[in-house]
Amino acid sequence: MTPRELWESYKALLFDDPDLGVRLDLSRMGPFARSLEKSEPALQAAYAEMDDLEAGGIANADENRMVGHYWLRAPERAPDPAITKTIRDTQDEVFDFAARVHGGRVKPPQADRFRRLLVIGIGGSALGPQLVADALGGPGDRLSAHFLDNTDPDGIDRVLEGLGDGLAETLAIVISKSGGTAETRNGMLEAAAAWRSRGLDFGPQAVAITRDGSALDRHARQEGFLDRSPLWDWVGGRTSETSAVGLLPAALQGIDVRALLDGAAAMDEATRRHETRRNPAALLASAWHAAGEGRGSKAMVVLPYRDRLLLFSRYLQQLVMESVGKEKDRAGRVVHQGLTVYGNKGSTDQHAFVQQLRDGTADFFLTFVRVLRDRQGAGLEVAPGTTSGDFLDGFLLGTRRALFESGRPSLTLTIPDVSPRSLGMLIALYERAVGLYASLININAYHQPGVEAGKKAAAGVLDLQTRVLAALREKGADGATCEGLAEASGAPDEVETVFHILERLAANPERGVSRWPGSTPFDAVYRLAGR
Amino acid sequence: MTPRELWESYKALLFDDPDLGVRLDLSRMGPFARSLEKSEPALQAAYAEMDDLEAGGIANADENRMVGHYWLRAPERAPDPAITKTIRDTQDEVFDFAARVHGGRVKPPQADRFRRLLVIGIGGSALGPQLVADALGGPGDRLSAHFLDNTDPDGIDRVLEGLGDGLAETLAIVISKSGGTAETRNGMLEAAAAWRSRGLDFGPQAVAITRDGSALDRHARQEGFLDRSPLWDWVGGRTSETSAVGLLPAALQGIDVRALLDGAAAMDEATRRHETRRNPAALLASAWHAAGEGRGSKAMVVLPYRDRLLLFSRYLQQLVMESVGKEKDRAGRVVHQGLTVYGNKGSTDQHAFVQQLRDGTADFFLTFVRVLRDRQGAGLEVAPGTTSGDFLDGFLLGTRRALFESGRPSLTLTIPDVSPRSLGMLIALYERAVGLYASLININAYHQPGVEAGKKAAAGVLDLQTRVLAALREKGADGATCEGLAEASGAPDEVETVFHILERLAANPERGVSRWPGSTPFDAVYRLAGR
Repeated sequence: MTPRELWESYKALLFDDPDLGVRLDLSRMGPFARSLEKSEPALQAAYAEMDDLEAGGIANADENRMVGHYWLRAPERAPDPAITKTIRDTQDEVFDFAARVHGGRVKPPQADRFRRLLVIGIGGSALGPQLVADALGGPGDRLSAHFLDNTDPDGIDRVLEGLGDGLAETLAIVISKSGGTAETRNGMLEAAAAWRSRGLDFGPQAVAITRDGSALDRHARQEGFLDRSPLWDWVGGRTSETSAVGLLPAALQGIDVRALLDGAAAMDEATRRHETRRNPAALLASAWHAAGEGRGSKAMVVLPYRDRLLLFSRYLQQLVMESVGKEKDRAGRVVHQGLTVYGNKGSTDQHAFVQQLRDGTADFFLTFVRVLRDRQGAGLEVAPGTTSGDFLDGFLLGTRRALFESGRPSLTLTIPDVSPRSLGMLIALYERAVGLYASLININAYHQPGVEAGKKAAAGVLDLQTRVLAALREKGADGATCEGLAEASGAPDEVETVFHILERLAANPERGVSRWPGSTPFDAVYRLAGR
Repeated sequence: MTPRELWESYKALLFDDPDLGVRLDLSRMGPFARSLEKSEPALQAAYAEMDDLEAGGIANADENRMVGHYWLRAPERAPDPAITKTIRDTQDEVFDFAARVHGGRVKPPQADRFRRLLVIGIGGSALGPQLVADALGGPGDRLSAHFLDNTDPDGIDRVLEGLGDGLAETLAIVISKSGGTAETRNGMLEAAAAWRSRGLDFGPQAVAITRDGSALDRHARQEGFLDRSPLWDWVGGRTSETSAVGLLPAALQGIDVRALLDGAAAMDEATRRHETRRNPAALLASAWHAAGEGRGSKAMVVLPYRDRLLLFSRYLQQLVMESVGKEKDRAGRVVHQGLTVYGNKGSTDQHAFVQQLRDGTADFFLTFVRVLRDRQGAGLEVAPGTTSGDFLDGFLLGTRRALFESGRPSLTLTIPDVSPRSLGMLIALYERAVGLYASLININAYHQPGVEAGKKAAAGVLDLQTRVLAALREKGADGATCEGLAEASGAPDEVETVFHILERLAANPERGVSRWPGSTPFDAVYRLAGR
């Protein structure tokens, strides 16, 4: 295509909504956008399913659940007045709680006010808050945000040491929908121990966000947590950013969460449209479908040209891959669906993996996220008449062109700025796009059956470790090999796992397992110290 | 396979080197590891090429350059005594400079000592230092590390505001091998402006790491930089972590960089072996080759179960994808090679995209990084006899098992701890694996021709912007449309780019471009304020 033809194509295909301030350019995505009418019947079916979902249908049939994250931005649309009320009440409580913390009316026992925030959660209870904290926070935050999002003891130690004396003025938010997530429970117990070691009491500085009556909810009552905020089975973790999960930490940071909700609501309105060319989520879903031939055959590389959106691809990894990566379709057929997402930020990634994107395997399509507003205030001229922001945008446009010339498809999403409203729009846009895409490929986007197997296997390892330690005690001073200990643990077939357990215990001296080398790594003899 | 058969396979295939403390398990990578002899001729050719590279051969033929990063860990092996000397001298200078900063003998003009570090660089001049800073740093760092790794004005503002009054005690390290990287130059100029705005002088608080005689080198002389450290054309950006690029920031942070160098040197020794089963880099390269059928048909998902290794996959993205993602092989044939890398950390990612890994598209293989040592000191028991670290390792072993049961291949790399020595080993291991893999697929791993097109196109955009602004001045109060301004800029074919430029300028009020809406977004009239 000549530049002129490309320009005509750009003009013909551009999604532009001045009220949203969002544009979506599909002109570099190949021919699909010129023949959207082919997929129109499938899209109309997807809209109908989405309408049904929003009306309270059991969209997550595998778990017999409604899917209600859109109601969080329009409580009046919830199918049950009780849901409308609990959403509104919860939002009011979030705003009120944040105001009381900011005003010093809710304060820690041993300091004049809260100045830091420690969010303890993982996956859907961490990535949204982390994205928002990084995108919209900064040195001026009312409470600075910190996270425990794993069960890595060394990682936990580093965060808690970093808070140091600040623990006395730290508000902890423990987030677990089920209330039983092991990583989150461990993080909470480790944090409480750090509080204790400084003579502080965790409960009066903690808030729980969890389902009513969960183990975490009960723990919060027992320990006298400052506050508890509800979650519901009709909000999934990866779509919980506009519930208390996302709103409470952001509000405490000092972020305008009403604007974030408003942005999401405005995007929800736009993405309810049944006219595909006016529905940016439908256009995205169609683009993904066309690029990946309906089976995710190309990865989605996400490159926002903006430091503050570095975590956006990580957030989308969860939202897209956990929703779309499924073994079976809704008819029970084995389909092994998926849509891989990765990326960091431009122009930084141009100095990393863009070499492969331009010259290497053609196994991806690119999503550029372009932000129009550069910075607060006037910019320095780094060359006559030219700012750092001009360079950033020049790199985006230049890379878009170079990739197109290499035959690598890309779409470009333009947003006005990185503000609470724009971020709310982005979140709502991709939530809807994932839902529509799932309809197009006929899968349930709202469950995650594949993570159970790993959890069960992990529980088996922990149980086996307990048995191995008991066997070590039995063996006494003689000790035994991994084979012997597997046998003594009643798990002769699990000798490989027993070996892994023993090697790790022996590498951590305080566990008291000593290791005498053998002629091969597998002949070592282990025994408990003091036996 | 039964668990017993798996255990026998594990034992038979395990790479174990007690001196290194590193293990590599290939038993879950499918049948290839049982028939390595098939690829032995290709591997022997790769070893020979690697020997030649280390002896000073022109391994980067496209740029007519030697490839010398292994000499950085064994200067006596350099092919020229002058190289040996410059490596040793540079290392001595790095250690000496860090000692003088720590001792307060090198100090800023307006504070008693340096307490913060601002590394300004991008790509190969940022990812290594960021990985090391995050993996080995913490609240107790002698200088806390901060980074400018992009030309995003808002991102730059946030970092500089975060440093705030601390600028007076901040040591800036400006890193650019060519000395002309636009993002780094802009970051340096923005930083210098922030210094000035606080009445500080940038030069006496800055160090340059660049090639002798580069634009940055000249600038550093003119501005009276504290110090300059050399780079050489035989060290590529993505393999520069053990040059001054990585050593100086890490040494200033207080990290034991000699141990990092020792670890890399020890791994270099192991990966020079010509016996494939005793060479962990050759085993990795062979595994990649087998998994991706020699054409990168499967992505490499990297999951270290350790918070401190979160950036490892980002570092590997650059090292692997920029090295391997090539249009042509060394014979000039178009091959479009590549090897996609992504991942964050376990067990966090189990709550994000591992759903897709287990159930979805089978388009990847997994690299688990397992760390034996949990934390400094004794751990809290989060359940009777069980620590947070037990959970973390349980999740790793459980996920490894669940993925294997789903037919998803994985390899597991075990390291003793996250220490300077272990990180040095990791870096050296993957540097060598990439080099050997490149030999197996017959590409040049040491150039990056594909990034030039984007840079050139970006320069074209910046040049066009200058012409558009001149045209706007000419048009005066009447202004013009994007079509009219493209014409007036002498670039009628570039109207789409002119449109993008104008829309962005109009979104940034201080640029003085006002926009009058038309009947479509493409009919808007732009003019310069005050005209």
